[in-house]
Amino acid sequence: MNHIDLVALLAVVQLVFFAILVGRARGRYGVKAPAVSGHEMFERAYRVQMNTLELMVMFLPALYIAAKYWPAQYIAGIGAVYLIGRLIYWRSYTAAPARRGLGFALSMIPVLALLIAGLVGIIRNAAG
Amino acid sequence: MNHIDLVALLAVVQLVFFAILVGRARGRYGVKAPAVSGHEMFERAYRVQMNTLELMVMFLPALYIAAKYWPAQYIAGIGAVYLIGRLIYWRSYTAAPARRGLGFALSMIPVLALLIAGLVGIIRNAAG
Amino acid sequence: MNHIDLVALLAVVQLVFFAILVGRARGRYGVKAPAVSGHEMFERAYRVQMNTLELMVMFLPALYIAAKYWPAQYIAGIGAVYLIGRLIYWRSYTAAPARRGLGFALSMIPVLALLIAGLVGIIRNAAG
Repeated sequence: MNHIDLVALLAVVQLVFFAILVGRARGRYGVKAPAVSGHEMFERAYRVQMNTLELMVMFLPALYIAAKYWPAQYIAGIGAVYLIGRLIYWRSYTAAPARRGLGFALSMIPVLALLIAGLVGIIRNAAG
Repeated sequence: MNHIDLVALLAVVQLVFFAILVGRARGRYGVKAPAVSGHEMFERAYRVQMNTLELMVMFLPALYIAAKYWPAQYIAGIGAVYLIGRLIYWRSYTAAPARRGLGFALSMIPVLALLIAGLVGIIRNAAG
Repeated sequence: MNHIDLVALLAVVQLVFFAILVGRARGRYGVKAPAVSGHEMFERAYRVQMNTLELMVMFLPALYIAAKYWPAQYIAGIGAVYLIGRLIYWRSYTAAPARRGLGFALSMIPVLALLIAGLVGIIRNAAG
């Protein structure tokens, strides 16, 4: 099985899920397009989606580049931590934005680990 | 011809075009940076760009992963529906945000189709 | 050395850096999540991050597609101009949003160059 592709697709599925929650929050809290503010609960759902969008643009390139230089199962494992971190981020941000720290750390640290893995891989490859 | 690369580049060209429209709307409706609100027509142009940005992060990975497991011309065909859907979304959202449904569906359904194609491809590949 | 991967990772590192600046600006200017407005300096930092996010979704696909059809060192060189352009954009936008033109041009023109390189590459490849 291609674990890297699977992790990448699950990250996309997760983003689709967060986007659906934003659409539902529009209806539930009466925030009509094009507005993206006006009700605290809508704004929380929207920020979860936007923050995940921001991280995806870091996560996906770092995931695929790191996987060029290191065994796929380790890199996919780091990716799995990211997926769990995002779920925790979503649950805690929706409950109380101030408690988003753990979920954020558990999704940001894997991104940083993949970036370092990628950079070390490129440099080792150039040196060798 | 590499149809997948072509579809991906056209999706990027489309996003560049929507970004240019946002820049023009800034001038026309007097919304000075860093503000991203203040005039309904500017906000519509901005939401078209942002919604397309959100979809691109789903569309591009799903496009390339699906193309690893299925014939390129079918996957590129699904991608072409996405491109047309985005054009309809832009036209209808700018005219009246409430009418954005069709264009949204025609760009979201291809993304979901590509995600399913990718997941089925990965699983079939692992099983076979 | 894989120059394309290196440029792509450095672009991601740059986006991480801009995101960290937004987090710091939240604390410094007292803009509590989920709000993304309320203080001009916070909004500037946020717009730098968002604009870079928008460009990344154009830059990374164009970079990798162009690199399929042209020598990696030229394409990586165009990518390096993008990285410098983004640094100038950040410095000038934070100082005064109205002066963001040069930095924006130096990051947008490389994106357009990569798009054209990719499209010409695909067409030449199909014709040959």
